[in-house]
Amino acid sequence: MAQDILIEDSRILAVAKSGSLEVEPGTETIPADGLLAVPGFINTHAHVPMVLIRNLAEDVTPTEWFNDYIWPMESNLTEDDVYWGAQLGMAEMIENGVTCVADHYFYVDRIAEAVEQSGMRANLTWAVFGHEGEERVDQTVEFIKRWQGKADGRITTYLGPHAPYTTSPEFLAMCARKARQINTGIHIHVSETAPQVELSLEQYGITPVKQLQETGIFDVPTILGHCLYPREGDFKILAAANTGIAQAPKTYMKHGMGMAPIEKYLEHSIPIGLATDGAASNNTLDIMEQMRLLAMFTKYKTSDPTVMKMGQVVDIAFRGSAKVMHLEGQIGEVKAGFLADITLLRQDALYATPKANPLAALIYCLRASDVDTVLCNGKVLMQGRKLLTLDKEKIRQEVQSRVQRLSQRLPGTAIAYYPT
Amino acid sequence: MAQDILIEDSRILAVAKSGSLEVEPGTETIPADGLLAVPGFINTHAHVPMVLIRNLAEDVTPTEWFNDYIWPMESNLTEDDVYWGAQLGMAEMIENGVTCVADHYFYVDRIAEAVEQSGMRANLTWAVFGHEGEERVDQTVEFIKRWQGKADGRITTYLGPHAPYTTSPEFLAMCARKARQINTGIHIHVSETAPQVELSLEQYGITPVKQLQETGIFDVPTILGHCLYPREGDFKILAAANTGIAQAPKTYMKHGMGMAPIEKYLEHSIPIGLATDGAASNNTLDIMEQMRLLAMFTKYKTSDPTVMKMGQVVDIAFRGSAKVMHLEGQIGEVKAGFLADITLLRQDALYATPKANPLAALIYCLRASDVDTVLCNGKVLMQGRKLLTLDKEKIRQEVQSRVQRLSQRLPGTAIAYYPT
Repeated sequence: MAQDILIEDSRILAVAKSGSLEVEPGTETIPADGLLAVPGFINTHAHVPMVLIRNLAEDVTPTEWFNDYIWPMESNLTEDDVYWGAQLGMAEMIENGVTCVADHYFYVDRIAEAVEQSGMRANLTWAVFGHEGEERVDQTVEFIKRWQGKADGRITTYLGPHAPYTTSPEFLAMCARKARQINTGIHIHVSETAPQVELSLEQYGITPVKQLQETGIFDVPTILGHCLYPREGDFKILAAANTGIAQAPKTYMKHGMGMAPIEKYLEHSIPIGLATDGAASNNTLDIMEQMRLLAMFTKYKTSDPTVMKMGQVVDIAFRGSAKVMHLEGQIGEVKAGFLADITLLRQDALYATPKANPLAALIYCLRASDVDTVLCNGKVLMQGRKLLTLDKEKIRQEVQSRVQRLSQRLPGTAIAYYPT
Repeated sequence: MAQDILIEDSRILAVAKSGSLEVEPGTETIPADGLLAVPGFINTHAHVPMVLIRNLAEDVTPTEWFNDYIWPMESNLTEDDVYWGAQLGMAEMIENGVTCVADHYFYVDRIAEAVEQSGMRANLTWAVFGHEGEERVDQTVEFIKRWQGKADGRITTYLGPHAPYTTSPEFLAMCARKARQINTGIHIHVSETAPQVELSLEQYGITPVKQLQETGIFDVPTILGHCLYPREGDFKILAAANTGIAQAPKTYMKHGMGMAPIEKYLEHSIPIGLATDGAASNNTLDIMEQMRLLAMFTKYKTSDPTVMKMGQVVDIAFRGSAKVMHLEGQIGEVKAGFLADITLLRQDALYATPKANPLAALIYCLRASDVDTVLCNGKVLMQGRKLLTLDKEKIRQEVQSRVQRLSQRLPGTAIAYYPT
């Protein structure tokens, strides 16, 4: 049944049968005949500017990936590089129907600028390694003060100690204390690989998840990247925390990292959301691909095609991801009272013909290239696949002109060291 | 380095640095600036007309899938339905850059008509269940005589006993004998699930693969669908046979079927090719998606991101698939002497920006929607994403008008019974 969606300012006022809504004269109409309206896709854990170095670290181990490729290349990045990388990533995500992202990177003032221009919604975190010290954390607190609630409320900000394996417990405790002081949350990586958990048990006698609890990180709202290797005792800790877990299945498959115990997280009512991680590991920022992979991957892993049914898949993609963003009730549904973050998809591709089951088509047939129109916060960011807020040609030129310099890997220039 | 490809009739005459080839006046030029030329993608095992019933059997077990959904729905099919299903599937595949398919279905004369019109290359097999008897096999022999080598040689034909689990050993032996008599090959399903192998061991004391050997099926060239569960002794049999194995990872993941021991097949030099199976299990006919999944899936399964390196992935996708089709040296390479089956891909999408590693972009970034131009047998089938041989609108209408009737599932109407 065709429906109309009435939007006022940043919010959805009503959703009802086509033609049944009373509309004030002069109300703008966005054509959507035959299009499928879904909530804007949500990317709950990314490093957006890493699109700059995509496709440059393939077929290598996680240790090589960090120490021989990514961290040396990232040492080449300037603030301007990060700005153009963020522009590219935002443009790519809007084309992919993504309206909201939790980003974890550095030079984040420049990412915030790109978010402001793009019209997207974002939670921004300035990542800090332990060796960078308290002074750097204080700088990121200043970043938070500059940007929290800016861009018509589209930008929120969290603190970002990088991970338990790149910080000390004291450093984590210091970050937790500062987060409480300024009333913000924390976005952090945890338990990405089995060796990371082993290392934590050796060094500290506790799991990385337990470490987050003991250092007070879980005293504030958190977004956890990955968490593929919780131990049995971790589930209770995670269930009691105000937290959610970002899942990027393409990254995990490609890097032979294994897979998170999704079903156990769901059993414990621990929120799960979709994510792309950075394009250096995921190659693209395509949440629809992650949605399909999460569904198929879970069926594969459990040897049971009846699990992760279609309703559950979209529930994770939208409501689950909204919970991970701590924006439940605000985004993730096309419903009166919610923010007007909406993606409209074409359904007429041959690979979705005949039309018989829109939900199956959404999960298993459609591609991000079927995204036609994207709204965020009530504003149109793309219409008929034309980007309205960002300059695609300029972005392409700026990024292409930087790749040769950025892909250099000079000895001794890594931004950090991966220990396992 | 930009290159030109010179084509005469159905074959590639030369590939050389742009501008360096001597070309006769009046030679037609196909613009390809900035496009990536790859061999046409090859689909080594499909049931193309099943696009008619895509998205209609989701989240169910393999047994329910066969007995409660697919085989009842297939009992509704008329010859005309199959024709329009074939047209839809061919159009979808051409848009996806696929130029060659091994199809296994029924009413195959009508599929052959669609292949002839589409301009694609196909190996066509009329599937026969054991209960249909020798008379039906003889009818498919007549089909072979009508179509072998037709459509400028684009159509080849094989015999098609459905699978060891839907035929008796005597039936298989009879099919093998007839295949030898008319000098053709056999396309068959084998060892798709562990229960199928168990059933064979119980009933006959041997594996399905051994059954194929003992009944003489391997005395002729074969295409094997799936073969996820070979037992140890099967590898030697398969390596000695003139055979290849079609792999459809999306189908296997979605249906929780497990995964074939790809690495062991490669160790034994058993050819592996990519396939979509039918769209009723795979939802789409997208070989690029299968290529990406095969790579990621193998890395995941082995917990080793350094296996299935990019060169090997494209080797399987193109040369491997050509071997499975028994067309090695004819298709699967863009090289002088090969048939002119060529797919040209755009590389300018934001999700493949910056351009830094075309092979990584091909495998991990590009989508089938980036296919711009498709040639098969030296003829242009699609240019600038416009289909030149098939009528997309007519196909959409014909297929949509049939779906309600075809989706009916009436008791006692299944075309066969799945025993495990």
